[in-house]
Amino acid sequence: MPFIHDQPDPSLTPAQVRQLCRENKLPTPQTSGYAPGYAQANIVVLPLKYADDFRTFCQRNPVPCPLLGETAPGDPTVPSHLAKGSDIRTDCARYNIYEDGKRIANKTDIIDEWQPDSVAFFIGCSYSFEDALIKGGFGLRHQELNNMTPCYRTSVPLMRSGPIKGKMVVSMRPYPLEKVPEIVRITKPYARTHGEPVGWGPEGAKELGIEDVNGQKPTWGDPTVLKEGEVCVYWGCGVSPQQAVMDSELPGVYMSHEPGQMLVLDLKIEDVCQ
Amino acid sequence: MPFIHDQPDPSLTPAQVRQLCRENKLPTPQTSGYAPGYAQANIVVLPLKYADDFRTFCQRNPVPCPLLGETAPGDPTVPSHLAKGSDIRTDCARYNIYEDGKRIANKTDIIDEWQPDSVAFFIGCSYSFEDALIKGGFGLRHQELNNMTPCYRTSVPLMRSGPIKGKMVVSMRPYPLEKVPEIVRITKPYARTHGEPVGWGPEGAKELGIEDVNGQKPTWGDPTVLKEGEVCVYWGCGVSPQQAVMDSELPGVYMSHEPGQMLVLDLKIEDVCQ
Repeated sequence: MPFIHDQPDPSLTPAQVRQLCRENKLPTPQTSGYAPGYAQANIVVLPLKYADDFRTFCQRNPVPCPLLGETAPGDPTVPSHLAKGSDIRTDCARYNIYEDGKRIANKTDIIDEWQPDSVAFFIGCSYSFEDALIKGGFGLRHQELNNMTPCYRTSVPLMRSGPIKGKMVVSMRPYPLEKVPEIVRITKPYARTHGEPVGWGPEGAKELGIEDVNGQKPTWGDPTVLKEGEVCVYWGCGVSPQQAVMDSELPGVYMSHEPGQMLVLDLKIEDVCQ
Repeated sequence: MPFIHDQPDPSLTPAQVRQLCRENKLPTPQTSGYAPGYAQANIVVLPLKYADDFRTFCQRNPVPCPLLGETAPGDPTVPSHLAKGSDIRTDCARYNIYEDGKRIANKTDIIDEWQPDSVAFFIGCSYSFEDALIKGGFGLRHQELNNMTPCYRTSVPLMRSGPIKGKMVVSMRPYPLEKVPEIVRITKPYARTHGEPVGWGPEGAKELGIEDVNGQKPTWGDPTVLKEGEVCVYWGCGVSPQQAVMDSELPGVYMSHEPGQMLVLDLKIEDVCQ
């Protein structure tokens, strides 16, 4: 069982989780399960010259790319309503660094890479509504298996913006088919963290261009286990914008969090509800 | 040349165009070219029970479905900031009426069909930025040919909302390939009327699932003529939400404008710019 990891400690505050990340002491490979009741964010860091197009890209694709906020150019301070006293260069557990569309490094901070014209964007994450699913009586298979949320690259083209284009990425959680309407109802209000599912079951997988209908070969994350009567349920995923930036092969250096290792916010999940 | 029609009179005010529609005297089969400088809107009329899901559907798909406003339930008065003194039951030239996903009638008003729980939604239309293209030195082939804007059903699934799902519809205008960056720049600010193109050329057509790369067999509207060096340029289209409502086969009666025959608004196009 190579994908069994330490359990997250749900008693930690968002600031304490960020402190663990800053000190490179997060004992798990993802932030799912930490600080239940608080939102988490995907990160994309770009040179200022791409900021307008990226912002528009997010506005045109609010389901996979719900923009929660951004830094001032060159200032790595996270806006205080998102995460007080946080420095985006250090407060995710791991980062990917890209150059001209190729991943060139994976590091625990981006202090050396941050530039005077860097802008960090904060994008909603579906971990934010997982607590609502649990409170609604719906467990999370990746937490039960203690492994990584499976994510898929789909064939669905996103709405392009200037030089930025790409395909949607989705996260997946298995649930009984007959419970899907309730799953829709619970996650629908979380419009700023992907909202209701974009599809489910073999028909949904086909529409999204996902061949692996049983959750065995995700593009990222770990395989899952489908129980009798369960289907794969897919949500827009905040890995989409970083994948789009990479696929667009923008010239220059840009950074993102390592998928699954989000920035844990001080924003309560109620604050990302409509 | 069966698709040659009368020319629009550009000197008419939006209120005068609406008056013509109300009196069933619009001499052309589309509103493209009328009231240059003013926005136009697609219309979807639904029973109140679908209003929440439809509103969310638009929010999740802002490129094809940019929601400009809606009526109070049961009140056919168009919000005055959109079109002063306008009654949505009469002020489009023609309407389609659907029952359980099937088109059952095409009429010049929906006075008989309007119900105490009807809600009309107003969705941005790309005719709104055509004047900006003309001012930027880019003619409109459908106006030159005096025929209907070609529109295509694509293979791109929209983000579903409750029972509402569907594929994106796009409008198409031909332009020289090397001018596409300028076309993008001109239409990008019109975020509430579809903004910049979603694709162009044979590669864009392939990504959108459009086989007819030469503009000869549009799903709706008339065939076009591509000149040397020109490619098809595609924009999100406000026919998408009415097509989605129809394809979702929602039980009940709902209405829309006839594609191409929009509600002409008092909103200036500057007001739909970002």
